[in-house]
Amino acid sequence: MATDAIRVAILGASGYTGAELLRVLLRHPRVRVVALTADRKAGEGIETVFPQFLGLGLPRLVTIQEVDWSGVDAVFCALPHGTTQEVIAGLPTHLKIVDLSADFRLRDPAEYAKWYGHEHRAPKLQEEAVYGLTEMYRSGVATARLVANPGCYPTSAQLPLLPLLAADQIDPDDIVIDAKSGVSGAGRAAKEGSLYCEVGEGTHAYGVGSHRHGPEIEQILSETVGRPIVVNFTPHLMPMNRGMLSSIYVKLKPGVSADDLRATLLQRYADEPFVQITSQGVAPQTRHVRGTNACHIGVFPDRVKGRAMLFSVIDNLMKGASGQAVQNFNVMYGLPETTGLDQIALFP
Amino acid sequence: MATDAIRVAILGASGYTGAELLRVLLRHPRVRVVALTADRKAGEGIETVFPQFLGLGLPRLVTIQEVDWSGVDAVFCALPHGTTQEVIAGLPTHLKIVDLSADFRLRDPAEYAKWYGHEHRAPKLQEEAVYGLTEMYRSGVATARLVANPGCYPTSAQLPLLPLLAADQIDPDDIVIDAKSGVSGAGRAAKEGSLYCEVGEGTHAYGVGSHRHGPEIEQILSETVGRPIVVNFTPHLMPMNRGMLSSIYVKLKPGVSADDLRATLLQRYADEPFVQITSQGVAPQTRHVRGTNACHIGVFPDRVKGRAMLFSVIDNLMKGASGQAVQNFNVMYGLPETTGLDQIALFP
Amino acid sequence: MATDAIRVAILGASGYTGAELLRVLLRHPRVRVVALTADRKAGEGIETVFPQFLGLGLPRLVTIQEVDWSGVDAVFCALPHGTTQEVIAGLPTHLKIVDLSADFRLRDPAEYAKWYGHEHRAPKLQEEAVYGLTEMYRSGVATARLVANPGCYPTSAQLPLLPLLAADQIDPDDIVIDAKSGVSGAGRAAKEGSLYCEVGEGTHAYGVGSHRHGPEIEQILSETVGRPIVVNFTPHLMPMNRGMLSSIYVKLKPGVSADDLRATLLQRYADEPFVQITSQGVAPQTRHVRGTNACHIGVFPDRVKGRAMLFSVIDNLMKGASGQAVQNFNVMYGLPETTGLDQIALFP
Amino acid sequence: MATDAIRVAILGASGYTGAELLRVLLRHPRVRVVALTADRKAGEGIETVFPQFLGLGLPRLVTIQEVDWSGVDAVFCALPHGTTQEVIAGLPTHLKIVDLSADFRLRDPAEYAKWYGHEHRAPKLQEEAVYGLTEMYRSGVATARLVANPGCYPTSAQLPLLPLLAADQIDPDDIVIDAKSGVSGAGRAAKEGSLYCEVGEGTHAYGVGSHRHGPEIEQILSETVGRPIVVNFTPHLMPMNRGMLSSIYVKLKPGVSADDLRATLLQRYADEPFVQITSQGVAPQTRHVRGTNACHIGVFPDRVKGRAMLFSVIDNLMKGASGQAVQNFNVMYGLPETTGLDQIALFP
Repeated sequence: MATDAIRVAILGASGYTGAELLRVLLRHPRVRVVALTADRKAGEGIETVFPQFLGLGLPRLVTIQEVDWSGVDAVFCALPHGTTQEVIAGLPTHLKIVDLSADFRLRDPAEYAKWYGHEHRAPKLQEEAVYGLTEMYRSGVATARLVANPGCYPTSAQLPLLPLLAADQIDPDDIVIDAKSGVSGAGRAAKEGSLYCEVGEGTHAYGVGSHRHGPEIEQILSETVGRPIVVNFTPHLMPMNRGMLSSIYVKLKPGVSADDLRATLLQRYADEPFVQITSQGVAPQTRHVRGTNACHIGVFPDRVKGRAMLFSVIDNLMKGASGQAVQNFNVMYGLPETTGLDQIALFP
Repeated sequence: MATDAIRVAILGASGYTGAELLRVLLRHPRVRVVALTADRKAGEGIETVFPQFLGLGLPRLVTIQEVDWSGVDAVFCALPHGTTQEVIAGLPTHLKIVDLSADFRLRDPAEYAKWYGHEHRAPKLQEEAVYGLTEMYRSGVATARLVANPGCYPTSAQLPLLPLLAADQIDPDDIVIDAKSGVSGAGRAAKEGSLYCEVGEGTHAYGVGSHRHGPEIEQILSETVGRPIVVNFTPHLMPMNRGMLSSIYVKLKPGVSADDLRATLLQRYADEPFVQITSQGVAPQTRHVRGTNACHIGVFPDRVKGRAMLFSVIDNLMKGASGQAVQNFNVMYGLPETTGLDQIALFP
Repeated sequence: MATDAIRVAILGASGYTGAELLRVLLRHPRVRVVALTADRKAGEGIETVFPQFLGLGLPRLVTIQEVDWSGVDAVFCALPHGTTQEVIAGLPTHLKIVDLSADFRLRDPAEYAKWYGHEHRAPKLQEEAVYGLTEMYRSGVATARLVANPGCYPTSAQLPLLPLLAADQIDPDDIVIDAKSGVSGAGRAAKEGSLYCEVGEGTHAYGVGSHRHGPEIEQILSETVGRPIVVNFTPHLMPMNRGMLSSIYVKLKPGVSADDLRATLLQRYADEPFVQITSQGVAPQTRHVRGTNACHIGVFPDRVKGRAMLFSVIDNLMKGASGQAVQNFNVMYGLPETTGLDQIALFP
Repeated sequence: MATDAIRVAILGASGYTGAELLRVLLRHPRVRVVALTADRKAGEGIETVFPQFLGLGLPRLVTIQEVDWSGVDAVFCALPHGTTQEVIAGLPTHLKIVDLSADFRLRDPAEYAKWYGHEHRAPKLQEEAVYGLTEMYRSGVATARLVANPGCYPTSAQLPLLPLLAADQIDPDDIVIDAKSGVSGAGRAAKEGSLYCEVGEGTHAYGVGSHRHGPEIEQILSETVGRPIVVNFTPHLMPMNRGMLSSIYVKLKPGVSADDLRATLLQRYADEPFVQITSQGVAPQTRHVRGTNACHIGVFPDRVKGRAMLFSVIDNLMKGASGQAVQNFNVMYGLPETTGLDQIALFP
């Protein structure tokens, strides 16, 4: 470890995104993890909560109050929605922060209040926060103190859609996003709906018309198009631990073909290390990005004239959460974006 | 067993739909299974091929040639596509036949040739066959000698769509069917793509724009609407043994609401024992129809104005194959349709 | 339904064994389900809690207090351990009861207190209760008012072991039971350890040396042998919904071979409808008894001289719980034991 | 990449162990992968066969004949058993070789012929090969030209057993190894027994008394004890992609306790980076070593006096195959053993 290591604290280390942050950051060549918090498990070793860290000699879990912030440079905040805004509002201002909750993603306070059921409790920070879809907001992230890390569904949907909307190749008013997610997206909370027997050997839609990632998707699409956009976004739960597939059905602008969409995406992402466009006719699979920060996108013509399909896969815990958080961290510190993020997918 | 038992042969008993037929028919009060064929496994006991039949004292597997047709009244044909048409063409004409292959589903010989790569080899039978989506073609099935049992995807898509098209409540030119299937739909053939490690812990679209159930869906929709309809039909493979969910995105005709769709479906299926409309706000789950002939349908408004969503779940091996085959058999013999089909879903 | 239907109440209908009881009893030709209790969900429809019962027109869930016992003949009690004994102690004595909890399985009050951490609160009933491993205690069950339905692990272990111990063919002091269970055995309580992500894609032993089914196994083995027996019983959690496999490693008595064990089991279970011995060389699979009351047992010689192996599979929710409960009920009412229990396994 | 990179070829890159080798070696700081062979897929890009390598700019697949051996320093051979011995016999002798097949694991030619059904076809090489259970045969591996990489089951069983046998703490004649493996151990060959539907939602023993890893385990145990040892080794197939758990039941030598076993293992593996002993009372889980070269071992007393239990988990594709192969490679080249092997488990 270089003496100029960036000293990092992970708030909420006992959840799945916290553990995934730790997995990545422990192998990040410029990072030293100096604090791990988990209020209810404070005092325990992290290897008790997550035995995959057995034998690594890590700091014990502490409460947020116990952290000595003078020895910390940057914070990854993996706390639940709602409490996050108050915690972050109370942190010293010398800290750079990547927040993985939804608290700072919606910019419009009215929109936030509508979807989350209460006024935002840190409106100044909400204004300050930069939305961290790295490939799109890189320059803003570079100078941000607080980055609002995107949701998993929005990431998987926006990466294929934004360049096509920017190029005016698809109709923004006719977009269907049928999204499929592994169960880890629901976190480690003990809920009946996340039990093995409730999820295994079956599938179903959930949060139909009411999932909070809907307005997050629409916010960014609207910004790109320049007017309010509403999309169909329908999440489904899959019997798998991780992985996310967004199957997106779009209407082409007159004279545009699926090949044109493909060309736009190929060009837009030519220099992006984490986004790959699959070969003609190849539908991407979630398992081929498992454990990585990659997004694979496939483009197909529809048999219905004037329409096309996009398939976008990510690992919901990586590009959909902790991986993109580290990518943003790298941008904030001027490091190569792939630093610590060169994992190859674990398949099978 | 009544002395007036209907004597049944299952052709292709060593595949998954064959085994599922056997599971159902062995508990059917009016059926006696008198022959099980499996050319490559002829001579073996069925309990060697499918140990779930251990201890039931069933007839050994034989070749089709070995069957004494004089002792058979009805045939369930669960053979691969392509060879089926020749086998059935060679059967005695006193037999009633439910065919689970795709060979007799498409009525237009040109359409068949286009999608299956060869001229139909039993065009007379193709003309004679009745398409067995029971709830829609009951009267035709009742008098048919040869029923073409529908595909799993078409069944799950047509049941929610046909009443709405018939009622002119949705736009037939703007239908997206995002379908999700368990692996048993691919059969028991040893293919790399069906291996546990290739399917487990992940999901992906397949047969995009090229799956043969597309034209089957369109044929029936077109017939209902009265002109050629093209839909987006996109199948996805799920890491689960059985179950099928079709998430269908539709555009409402002017003045029509999602509630109107729901009312139409409730009325249309009020007397149908196998079709249930879920309560407002309840998305159906494949696991709740596992092992049964049921179809559960949910209706939701879209946040996009003028659009709605339908979710339809079946067990791909039951209502999507063997269950509906028995349902058709019941109709052909004038039996109550639920005879032998009163299973309750195995959950968890 | 015959007018002489036996009127049944299921206490604890919102758990997995409760639902499984309902699945079986709704198709039982002599039973009418007249009451379903679930204290915390009282007032809801059972189809809200378990959508597989949609469309069946069942009674709503009520509290135990709300049940009119004068209209009930028999009770299946699927309540948590500990509270069960008090509930049952308070029931009218005209009721026949099959209890699926562990409360009445251990006969020795001291043993009960040791493993469950408190004195038994209904010691009279504990004395009265008959242990319902049907194949072994049929005559006692036939005249019992209260049957203690065996645990899943004990059922899967005792069925292969008891005849061999009775025949003095194996050493009772050298028995290793390595048991593997699906997750439904842990019930529907929302616990971190039962979450999809904590169970999926992995396996582990649990309750090592401390699982309460250990003394239950030993109690019956000891009774058979005539002196206290201690065995190694080690449960493992499998990433699957249901199914249980006990791999049992035994030492042969001098002069005894694995073939002798097989002969003993074949003879002992020749007339038992639910127990099947697999063919030589065939290891039974849990999936082939899924959803049924069957137990398949395989016998193999060990490469280590003088030792042998037994593999026993059941469905933990059926022969391991609700199926055997109905089997006992049938015995209590003098009905054929297979009444309502003729399911064929759902495979795949 | 340093100019002194070791140039590596992977033979058999289209199988699961080949892909896993590639995943690890591409991030190994001293390795350059210069050739990937796959006879039947020669000419294709590796990303066609394994899309997880999309965008990495890797060499195309070639036949073994096409490899220019003058540019290769070391070979990882991941070919099927049987053909391997002839392929390796034909390779230039300047190559260092780690062979992942079973061809060179058994030292006794008679034993090999007995279990593999033919005389060894490269007996000289068989004699030369060093068995690569790294923690035990490190010095031999360091100077070997050909390393026979151990099987997955033997690795998981030998690591806990060998120190205890060496310390004379357990009875070598009373060992039961109940082993549980994910499906990837069966490789990528399209076999009915590896299909999703044949493996999902169930478990079973296989290869009972006949699995070829039995003699491999016994060979090393016998060598340690100094006389022929026979053990019970019984593999089971789990519905999961990867992971292996060996539950081992042992008899203690007089005066020895489970705590003594634990002390021996703690001391023996104190300086081994890949072997961890879990805390008292903690049963290791396969998911916590997923994707890593780690082995976690738990030790428990048995309730049966004088007996104890060992639970050992590895990732069958890593410490059970490709990870240990790279570990051996590191030893052969005098590199730190953890080079390229510092992965942290992917959980969930």
